[in-house]
Amino acid sequence: MRAVVFDGALRVDEIDEPEPDDDEAVIKVALAGICGTDLELVRGYADFRGVPGHEMVGVVEDCETAPQWLGRRVVGEINVSCGRCRTCRANLPTHCERRSVLGIRGKQGAFANFITLPVANLHEVPPSVSDEAAVFTEPLAAALQILQQVEIDGRDDVAIFGDGRLGLLVAMVLAPTGCRLTVVGKHPHKLAIAQRLHAETRLPEEVAQARFDVVIEATGRPEGATAALEAVRPRGVLVLKTTGVGSGALDTNRIVVDEIEVIGSRCGAFEPALEAMADRIVDPTVLIEDTYALDDAIAAFEHARRRGALKILLRP
Amino acid sequence: MRAVVFDGALRVDEIDEPEPDDDEAVIKVALAGICGTDLELVRGYADFRGVPGHEMVGVVEDCETAPQWLGRRVVGEINVSCGRCRTCRANLPTHCERRSVLGIRGKQGAFANFITLPVANLHEVPPSVSDEAAVFTEPLAAALQILQQVEIDGRDDVAIFGDGRLGLLVAMVLAPTGCRLTVVGKHPHKLAIAQRLHAETRLPEEVAQARFDVVIEATGRPEGATAALEAVRPRGVLVLKTTGVGSGALDTNRIVVDEIEVIGSRCGAFEPALEAMADRIVDPTVLIEDTYALDDAIAAFEHARRRGALKILLRP
Repeated sequence: MRAVVFDGALRVDEIDEPEPDDDEAVIKVALAGICGTDLELVRGYADFRGVPGHEMVGVVEDCETAPQWLGRRVVGEINVSCGRCRTCRANLPTHCERRSVLGIRGKQGAFANFITLPVANLHEVPPSVSDEAAVFTEPLAAALQILQQVEIDGRDDVAIFGDGRLGLLVAMVLAPTGCRLTVVGKHPHKLAIAQRLHAETRLPEEVAQARFDVVIEATGRPEGATAALEAVRPRGVLVLKTTGVGSGALDTNRIVVDEIEVIGSRCGAFEPALEAMADRIVDPTVLIEDTYALDDAIAAFEHARRRGALKILLRP
Repeated sequence: MRAVVFDGALRVDEIDEPEPDDDEAVIKVALAGICGTDLELVRGYADFRGVPGHEMVGVVEDCETAPQWLGRRVVGEINVSCGRCRTCRANLPTHCERRSVLGIRGKQGAFANFITLPVANLHEVPPSVSDEAAVFTEPLAAALQILQQVEIDGRDDVAIFGDGRLGLLVAMVLAPTGCRLTVVGKHPHKLAIAQRLHAETRLPEEVAQARFDVVIEATGRPEGATAALEAVRPRGVLVLKTTGVGSGALDTNRIVVDEIEVIGSRCGAFEPALEAMADRIVDPTVLIEDTYALDDAIAAFEHARRRGALKILLRP
């Protein structure tokens, strides 16, 4: 099959189809999204080698363990947990100590014709959710995770630092809470999307003196954490979403003196994300900038890496 | 009056008695404690100049605004807030944007014969609490603040990093929760105090692979935050207590990937601290290592700075 392979350099190559484990289904990838994390992985983050890609929608092609899944259109939770370690036993499977993560750690990713995933990771996509929307399930779930971790309502003054793919998904998720929402970024065409969500928009230099109740750091740049921390009011909350090459560093004196709460936020549950799209509360497809054939993945990555680029999709 | 003065160097000098504002009492200091923050201030933290000292117990000597306080034995909340700024109006007076802080910021401190404080900041010391215990009210309140910010109970595996004055006060406060408590430090005579509280004790190198539900960072060294963060389990909590010269820096990738919650914790309410001592739940006097006359403050600071020193008191 065809696949995007990273072994220090990025190329499109012919590789063997992945073999499913006993509890796994084989999924034919219909559409996959390039994420900021993918761009970091091919810059050296997490010493990644292999096939990247963790945002995808596809159709179950083979599933001996649970044939009822055959032919269904699915998205898949990306963390594959062991179910036996102390973290799994503590009901934190996404933090499993021995986990593999689709296209990120020890599990061949979705920039390929086929992937395998445990049946337990699969979610059927409702008919009303298009492939173009469903491919956003994973990042939308990650955005929705914020609302599992922080209570946000109409009294809160909330800022999102970063007007990129993730920042705008977070804006879509937070807008319905009724909070007073500000998106901080530099790209007029992206900030225009935030304005359509009735968010205020600001340039980074315009919020130097601000003091928000809650700040979501979604700049995709490790150094973004510094400015985001600055903008939190005393006893306020900073939610961190960015991972990448060269970790950020938070000033502990500021955290202590102003008694700030910092919350790391990574993955979220898929069902609420699928529901939010089925119910038309969130429409992530406005973020799609272009779609490339898998064989044009090098050009697609270059496009995704451009300043101001929104979502780039790959169609295997 | 006599006072410890820091103007780049530390000396004991004759200075004018402080003039009380309209809402203030004059307090004759009976006993004052040297805190890690004082040692940091005279190393250059917060560009401090003036009279340090914020842990104290004394007797109200003058109080035109509220004469009923005259002669009472008191401790005093250290943050003097304006009551008018947006932070005060949000009911966060300890975070007042225009606050002065006794012996730390814009308010002459307690290493002197007299201080002034607003009557609103005063708490009468119960007769059963000795001066030697009451002088710990401020740091004990800061330790108790942790329990206002994090729910800790018998199911939790909790580690305190730091076996110093603050770390041991935190241990005294956490022991009654029934949590499984580990104090991490290097000083046998301090760890012995933790053991008497039925805490387990460990050397830093013994907890390299540990994964605690909650870690309290109380090492007093900014770089202590790094090892403390390492020891938190996924979705666990890190409470930061240390401030000082050269802030610590937290690895944002670790916080995001393991979805850790970091909570800055500074000052606490005085009444629960006084009650805990009156009820004999906590006896901080076991931490007293030596008491010096105010005129011997230079020697007292040198003693407090020694590796492994516990609480050093000054008697004006």
